[in-house]
Amino acid sequence: MQTAVARPSARGVVGRTRSRAGLVVRASKDTCRVAVLGASGYTGAEVVRLSALHPNISITALTGEKQAGKPFAEVFPHLVAASNVGPLVKISDVEFADVDAVFCCLPHATTQQIIKGLPKHLKIVDLSADFRLRDVDTYAEWYGNEHAAPELQKTAVYGLTELARDDIKKARLVANPGCYPTTVQIPLVPLLEGGMISKDDIIIDAKSGVSGAGRAAKESNLYVEIAEGINAYGVSSHRHMPEIEQGLSDAAGADVKVSFTPHLMCMSRGMQSTMYVKLAGGATPDSLRAALSERYASEPFVRVLPKGSVPHTRHVRGSNFCLIGVFPDRLPGRAIVICVIDNLVKGASGQAMQNLNLVMGFPETTGLMQLAMFP
Amino acid sequence: MQTAVARPSARGVVGRTRSRAGLVVRASKDTCRVAVLGASGYTGAEVVRLSALHPNISITALTGEKQAGKPFAEVFPHLVAASNVGPLVKISDVEFADVDAVFCCLPHATTQQIIKGLPKHLKIVDLSADFRLRDVDTYAEWYGNEHAAPELQKTAVYGLTELARDDIKKARLVANPGCYPTTVQIPLVPLLEGGMISKDDIIIDAKSGVSGAGRAAKESNLYVEIAEGINAYGVSSHRHMPEIEQGLSDAAGADVKVSFTPHLMCMSRGMQSTMYVKLAGGATPDSLRAALSERYASEPFVRVLPKGSVPHTRHVRGSNFCLIGVFPDRLPGRAIVICVIDNLVKGASGQAMQNLNLVMGFPETTGLMQLAMFP
Amino acid sequence: MQTAVARPSARGVVGRTRSRAGLVVRASKDTCRVAVLGASGYTGAEVVRLSALHPNISITALTGEKQAGKPFAEVFPHLVAASNVGPLVKISDVEFADVDAVFCCLPHATTQQIIKGLPKHLKIVDLSADFRLRDVDTYAEWYGNEHAAPELQKTAVYGLTELARDDIKKARLVANPGCYPTTVQIPLVPLLEGGMISKDDIIIDAKSGVSGAGRAAKESNLYVEIAEGINAYGVSSHRHMPEIEQGLSDAAGADVKVSFTPHLMCMSRGMQSTMYVKLAGGATPDSLRAALSERYASEPFVRVLPKGSVPHTRHVRGSNFCLIGVFPDRLPGRAIVICVIDNLVKGASGQAMQNLNLVMGFPETTGLMQLAMFP
Amino acid sequence: MQTAVARPSARGVVGRTRSRAGLVVRASKDTCRVAVLGASGYTGAEVVRLSALHPNISITALTGEKQAGKPFAEVFPHLVAASNVGPLVKISDVEFADVDAVFCCLPHATTQQIIKGLPKHLKIVDLSADFRLRDVDTYAEWYGNEHAAPELQKTAVYGLTELARDDIKKARLVANPGCYPTTVQIPLVPLLEGGMISKDDIIIDAKSGVSGAGRAAKESNLYVEIAEGINAYGVSSHRHMPEIEQGLSDAAGADVKVSFTPHLMCMSRGMQSTMYVKLAGGATPDSLRAALSERYASEPFVRVLPKGSVPHTRHVRGSNFCLIGVFPDRLPGRAIVICVIDNLVKGASGQAMQNLNLVMGFPETTGLMQLAMFP
Repeated sequence: MQTAVARPSARGVVGRTRSRAGLVVRASKDTCRVAVLGASGYTGAEVVRLSALHPNISITALTGEKQAGKPFAEVFPHLVAASNVGPLVKISDVEFADVDAVFCCLPHATTQQIIKGLPKHLKIVDLSADFRLRDVDTYAEWYGNEHAAPELQKTAVYGLTELARDDIKKARLVANPGCYPTTVQIPLVPLLEGGMISKDDIIIDAKSGVSGAGRAAKESNLYVEIAEGINAYGVSSHRHMPEIEQGLSDAAGADVKVSFTPHLMCMSRGMQSTMYVKLAGGATPDSLRAALSERYASEPFVRVLPKGSVPHTRHVRGSNFCLIGVFPDRLPGRAIVICVIDNLVKGASGQAMQNLNLVMGFPETTGLMQLAMFP
Repeated sequence: MQTAVARPSARGVVGRTRSRAGLVVRASKDTCRVAVLGASGYTGAEVVRLSALHPNISITALTGEKQAGKPFAEVFPHLVAASNVGPLVKISDVEFADVDAVFCCLPHATTQQIIKGLPKHLKIVDLSADFRLRDVDTYAEWYGNEHAAPELQKTAVYGLTELARDDIKKARLVANPGCYPTTVQIPLVPLLEGGMISKDDIIIDAKSGVSGAGRAAKESNLYVEIAEGINAYGVSSHRHMPEIEQGLSDAAGADVKVSFTPHLMCMSRGMQSTMYVKLAGGATPDSLRAALSERYASEPFVRVLPKGSVPHTRHVRGSNFCLIGVFPDRLPGRAIVICVIDNLVKGASGQAMQNLNLVMGFPETTGLMQLAMFP
Repeated sequence: MQTAVARPSARGVVGRTRSRAGLVVRASKDTCRVAVLGASGYTGAEVVRLSALHPNISITALTGEKQAGKPFAEVFPHLVAASNVGPLVKISDVEFADVDAVFCCLPHATTQQIIKGLPKHLKIVDLSADFRLRDVDTYAEWYGNEHAAPELQKTAVYGLTELARDDIKKARLVANPGCYPTTVQIPLVPLLEGGMISKDDIIIDAKSGVSGAGRAAKESNLYVEIAEGINAYGVSSHRHMPEIEQGLSDAAGADVKVSFTPHLMCMSRGMQSTMYVKLAGGATPDSLRAALSERYASEPFVRVLPKGSVPHTRHVRGSNFCLIGVFPDRLPGRAIVICVIDNLVKGASGQAMQNLNLVMGFPETTGLMQLAMFP
Repeated sequence: MQTAVARPSARGVVGRTRSRAGLVVRASKDTCRVAVLGASGYTGAEVVRLSALHPNISITALTGEKQAGKPFAEVFPHLVAASNVGPLVKISDVEFADVDAVFCCLPHATTQQIIKGLPKHLKIVDLSADFRLRDVDTYAEWYGNEHAAPELQKTAVYGLTELARDDIKKARLVANPGCYPTTVQIPLVPLLEGGMISKDDIIIDAKSGVSGAGRAAKESNLYVEIAEGINAYGVSSHRHMPEIEQGLSDAAGADVKVSFTPHLMCMSRGMQSTMYVKLAGGATPDSLRAALSERYASEPFVRVLPKGSVPHTRHVRGSNFCLIGVFPDRLPGRAIVICVIDNLVKGASGQAMQNLNLVMGFPETTGLMQLAMFP
């Protein structure tokens, strides 16, 4: 189907059938050679999945300290078709001279240590929390360790693409946003900037799929512990809170605190934030919707639904899209804003790819035009 | 295991092995002969499941207009062991002279018509919405039809057991509460009565399993439409809203309006309401928890969890229990109250059984001491 | 509802409301005082759940080496109502003089060591694999360690209740069967005994829920690794194979080997074996069904479905029932036999309870008459 | 990431941002203008999803008789980004002069009527069962109606791509295979052709996700009826049986009958066939695996896994890949073959796209190189 983005010419497949659908890793003029650090987790795997449809990315290294030496398709058999991707290696064994850019999918704290030691020619999109908070004291308070790279922190650009596109284009180090903060800031930042909602009465009830918890083997994330249920967690204490507040405070031009209650539910992918806001400056639910529609009219990945339409997490599964709905509240002077994304795509690896596209000068949607998978 | 309630002596099984585990339906002095009207839906089936552990209930009729004549175990094969229960019959074919009490599991509107025609000797627990709203105009506004039995409505007792026990004992017609209203009123009524929370700032974000939608074949409830996802529905327009507001208004002694956003998620059973409330009268999150703990200290089915414990819907699956947690909010002067139940048990058939026990003079917990099924 | 088993008189609840629905642990003439060894796993939790409806069982000790000291309701919050059950203790701290019987839910190998050291007055139902295989060499071959209690092994009775009831009644040590072997032997043993199927052409394709894998934190059992999928595992090498073959060989009076392929699928509970058999001795699918129906006519927990009815795992969820269907195969001279159980109930803790009832002289169905939970 | 197929140059997106990611429908030299008949079902939606990544397909009409007039994104909100696709229309309103090819996703029986009336210039890939069976008497026997287009039937090519590539290239009407038959024929046809397995002892135990049942509202496919369970259905009577037997008979050069038992389980997408076969001609499990590996060595979508690797349905979710594993059986002289696909992709719309590519002369993998989505 023809879309606004050009798509595969499909030439070449004949001449290379001997390599089947395998992924060829090779550098060239239009190619960005990428290393994925921490590729044994779900965000790493998702970067590889998305890269498979990206014509300008060549993955030249996948790292995994504990599983170094294992074929990638053994770690993630669903990527069996990515047969030309090499085995996992240790970070210390990566030949960074052959790398142009890095997706960093490592845990926080470790991330700082690794990134500050990387060669300066590398562009970096970091999916951890390490460079998201401008204030290193806030970082230390919420993450429990002093920041090990405060100077580097100052150079990082917070990568909520739709809200910081121009800065991202010039960045060397992009701090890719958290999934919850993405669902909150995309709808609420324009409303706060426009003075359309009160900064003092923002209540966020969020629901997440389990993939956000990562691949570490924990009893609480076993199938039978999660299936057919929901529970709140980290009530008033989740680490994405300061990130949300940083973004909303910038938008409001004043200190914002939010009520934020995340819930873990029995789905693999998907995230919804249901936000209860107080109208300000004469705004109405309809005017909120209109303002968001206008703000995001030319955005490829953000869709504001028409009045009455409810976004479902199922409608964005596997895609980089973000859907927003605005509803009147029964309580006078209030509105309800709902935002859904796929936590692994727009909430992590998809937005990371979107950011890398900007950093490298590729069209922003390259490799990201997959539609949602339903059912 | 010995519990506070006596349990099966298990005598008798030997002498009756020819009937295996089948359900014997027979009247006697200590026995309440029950008809289940509308037994082809999930709440009807759940009444039968719970009755199997109830020593004083004999089911003498199961009705289903469309499926009359079918063996019940064909309609609900999981109740195969209930082999002595007869086939579904039409309501018009029930011999009500042999019935002491009725669980009415019919759709609203139909319910009024049927109940007003029932013989006067029958005790009735109605699981529909038809007799829950005292104000028949409010009923007409939200349900779209004039109330057909306004006189009967005046005699109905709203059956939130823990809040209306004494009235229920004397009732002929109990209007069994809706599932959402149960999760809201159990925690919030005492807090409003005590003046501990503001009546003007109650925000309820609720999550429900799909069984609440009933067994009717609808595209939107197909497995693949529901699996691995969540969505809001009926935003600011769900029919349980006036029921919630009626109960909270009574408690506050003044008109209460609430923000109420239900969500449908991929689980069969379970319901959680996450409630965002504003503290009043010097209350704190800890004092809310203490007040609820004291209020429900002697209740068999309501448990207020200790500080820091989070209720999960999984912890009440299949049981009549209701778990409550109270948490501080990051926004000053606010608190978060979480309540979970199984929507088919405490939210429907279990509470109905609890109410019938009261009406008939049986100990309230009879037949209801099953613990939650996990995993 | 009245059933063939007497059920709670429900007296007593009034006089004890201060202890709410809590479980009182106390010894008396008709009471079996039980210790659950290894109570921090799913089978242990299920024993506690079932015991709550058993009038003759008092749980006096729950052990968990790693979590000793923790309140049980912290380890299994769904058993919050079992409030009078004490915290987990170490096995070495159990006062076995106050214990009449033991459910042993420990891992294999460990189990032998523990059981051989238990006081002789204890009755034991062991849920591990340690005492199921008569031949200790076969045990060593499949489980990788020499049997540490070969003498004790000789005294153990294999506890497939319906097939060994009289021996179980006299046993001190019951080796509770594996879940897969239960689904295979219940239908196939009578057919082999009757010479109605060939012993040389038995193909078993089994599907299991994930709870059978236990509560240990393993990457492969995480929600997102399991959700929305199925896979074979242990193809031709699953440890339940020799147990199946032992039982079928006994029935056939000759050495039987089977083809056995288990599958792990995205459900918490439930197990189905689809068995492809070759007819022998003039048997037909209808005569197989008739033979099984007759064999199990007076069994409380085994139901042979009528021609054309298909058993679903959902129909036995949470119950001790076992449903069997027999179907003609398109290949001439063959039939298909389907058997479903709940792997945690009839496949583990429920059958264990059934066996303890026999050992202790209680009616066999005591505490086990819960119907399946659907939806 | 560079692959063997060229991928989007991503040029053009800048100049067309006003249309965002919307789908532009326009005819040109390299473009195949496609109508999707019956686009309101899951296979229709999947065709649209896949087309979005296909540079040579322009969807010019989507039909839905009952929902004609509705915007497509209202019927399938997950395709919200396909904003340039018009509303559903009636088939009688399609301007076929502007159409080059048709995906026909209509129900059987109806399909014959429609296709025989279509203009002759159209290429057709039919996803129904209507043209799969060469023998119209067999069709009538299994589908219950006389075939209405027997002459057209003779011209249809059965489109199991890997097995009939050359014929498909020349076809006007491709009968796209059923999902189950795809999983069976890909592995077994080469083995039968090579005389490596017996034609008289093929037992197929298949497991399917629910999307195969379509979007029609049926009680038996409701979420709560399906969740957390599995059941056999259509035992020995499923309509895919004659299709399987036709393909296997062709391969064996003799009449083949199979034992085929499909199961419905709680997943949306995915299909596994576990096949129990008898070795012939001196074959071993290893030689079967080697033969299949060689047969499919240059196929882009079929992967034979190395010894010991087990295919999971999760590994192909959302992709057109087919994974095969071969295992020794414990029964001597037998082997177990496992094949997994996504029933909506390789089992339906993906294979249909693969076939259209061949028919239209596009490289076969165009639009189909999406990797599996996991988790």
